Amino acid sequence: MTARDLGDRAASRGATARKPTMADVARHAGVSLKTVSRVVNQEPHVRASLQERVQAAISALGYRRNEAAARLARGATMLTLGLVMENISNEFYSRLAAAVESAAARYEALVVFGSYEESADKERMLVESMYARGVDSLIVVPSAADHSWLAEHASLTTVFVDRVPPGLESADVVLLDDVRGGRAATEHLLARGHRRIALVSDDEGISSVHDRATGYRAALRAAGLAADDALTVRGLFDPWRVSHEVSRLLDLPDPPTAFFATNNRAAIGILQALRERPERPAYVSFDDFALADVFNPGVTVVRYDTARLARSAVDLLLNPSPSPRRVKVPVELVARGSGELPPS
Amino acid sequence: MTARDLGDRAASRGATARKPTMADVARHAGVSLKTVSRVVNQEPHVRASLQERVQAAISALGYRRNEAAARLARGATMLTLGLVMENISNEFYSRLAAAVESAAARYEALVVFGSYEESADKERMLVESMYARGVDSLIVVPSAADHSWLAEHASLTTVFVDRVPPGLESADVVLLDDVRGGRAATEHLLARGHRRIALVSDDEGISSVHDRATGYRAALRAAGLAADDALTVRGLFDPWRVSHEVSRLLDLPDPPTAFFATNNRAAIGILQALRERPERPAYVSFDDFALADVFNPGVTVVRYDTARLARSAVDLLLNPSPSPRRVKVPVELVARGSGELPPS
Repeated sequence: MTARDLGDRAASRGATARKPTMADVARHAGVSLKTVSRVVNQEPHVRASLQERVQAAISALGYRRNEAAARLARGATMLTLGLVMENISNEFYSRLAAAVESAAARYEALVVFGSYEESADKERMLVESMYARGVDSLIVVPSAADHSWLAEHASLTTVFVDRVPPGLESADVVLLDDVRGGRAATEHLLARGHRRIALVSDDEGISSVHDRATGYRAALRAAGLAADDALTVRGLFDPWRVSHEVSRLLDLPDPPTAFFATNNRAAIGILQALRERPERPAYVSFDDFALADVFNPGVTVVRYDTARLARSAVDLLLNPSPSPRRVKVPVELVARGSGELPPS
Repeated sequence: MTARDLGDRAASRGATARKPTMADVARHAGVSLKTVSRVVNQEPHVRASLQERVQAAISALGYRRNEAAARLARGATMLTLGLVMENISNEFYSRLAAAVESAAARYEALVVFGSYEESADKERMLVESMYARGVDSLIVVPSAADHSWLAEHASLTTVFVDRVPPGLESADVVLLDDVRGGRAATEHLLARGHRRIALVSDDEGISSVHDRATGYRAALRAAGLAADDALTVRGLFDPWRVSHEVSRLLDLPDPPTAFFATNNRAAIGILQALRERPERPAYVSFDDFALADVFNPGVTVVRYDTARLARSAVDLLLNPSPSPRRVKVPVELVARGSGELPPS
């Protein structure tokens, strides 16, 4: 027997006084929830026959339109946080989402999430859509596009994570110590004797990527070396493209002996390239990932505490301040083998 | 300048007519959002001085308690789906979450999510908490505990994914073809000449795990072999424990020459064990994962279309039917190397 069957039985013998929901109306009318929603919200282009069936079900059940809203208003708290990020199936984001969920649970808050897949339009649509549904607080990993439009939603408390939002530079932001991480990774490779260290980057319009690359260049400069454009690859979202570019660099007459990957996607591209090749260059990746220590050699990474990143964001969100704040979460290098290989 | 600054400026010159939110009250009173929520909801144990500050801010701004609810009621649609799962940082769940989000977007619905980490109590708390906030529709990957309590929430439309909920066997469920997948994986290893095939399982109280193991045993039986209890490990949630058990099996006087892993966690445990060992047993994993083809040899897996799994669930959810439905999503074996190794 399903929950639904039990509910119908309970309702038919009047055992419970629960109010009918939109789902009950849909079931009674034999139409989809979406159709009920369209009729209830008086959207255009709903067939007259469907409208009549829904209206008949509404009358029969005594459904009141704002039942869900009323239930929300009755609720003890209304804290629902929105989490807007690039792509939850990328491990950086799934770890972040899990950590935000845990941090929010400490405030008995629920988390609504959405991915925009580097589409600034979709990012904006997600924010608008969360706003329309009564989400008051947002955690956003912003795209590289201008974010001044968020000023329209001044009543939304917003904290940005991992990247500074272009056009809203003085918003509350929780960042990783990206410059230091890029510098530490590069210094680690320099200390093993590497002099031709390639940069496998991403879109440098993303502030965190830019800062990691800045750390890389600072470390080279401090060692009396110049960053070599021929050893830099940028704007690579897809591990397969990274893999192709890494192979191309290894085929140069004077190839790099080491790589610094500015994020987990770049590292996966390097792993894919090396699977097919005889060379054993050293590499260090910004971002830890679950299988990093299962490869042989293990992947040397710049690591940070994702739980701390999330807690900082949630704490800022729920304790608003009139002046903007910037929190920097520390990073550390974890040596596992790939970053300790000597120049060949 | 932050969105907040812009908003304050706009409000002070009366340029916008927006209504004050709980966040505005918190900012004005200089207290946390949680404190405002507690005062507004008349929760006990809030200091009198804080209560007064919040009340003063409410009066000054003209805040109405049910603003968020009113905004929700005004919204064109109110479809918000709840997604309750074990742990979003596991790749099976992050892929599922991304797919549910895409499927929900086709209905202009948002997704609220929560992880219960195999704690049946936390699972129930999550469902109650989503219900209290007006979520009408739920997608649940159920824990192994009894779910008859969900009958109390008969007005919640619920679809279960990946596992049959104990105690609610006739609910709407979208499953993978687990028996067939377990059978196909085992037949694949048998066809390469393996006779001692170990089962690396999980909690067999979880229906999907149970069914995959059933497929494994059926394939052995069809080949005239009996499942060997000495070659079965069960109830292993943690890849490190799996790794330890795999090592123990490989140390047996008559060790297995192949492994069937019932999920990605089990496969990762096998990969960890093999990193430290000279043996090269064959293995097949149920569940694909992002790095499965980066290992050498690539990991042979039983794969399925997560997008289809999610779409089926969302379609059932938004098109309720009086009789329970069960959908089975097909699976396929993808050979990448690890499942094609010969017996040693």
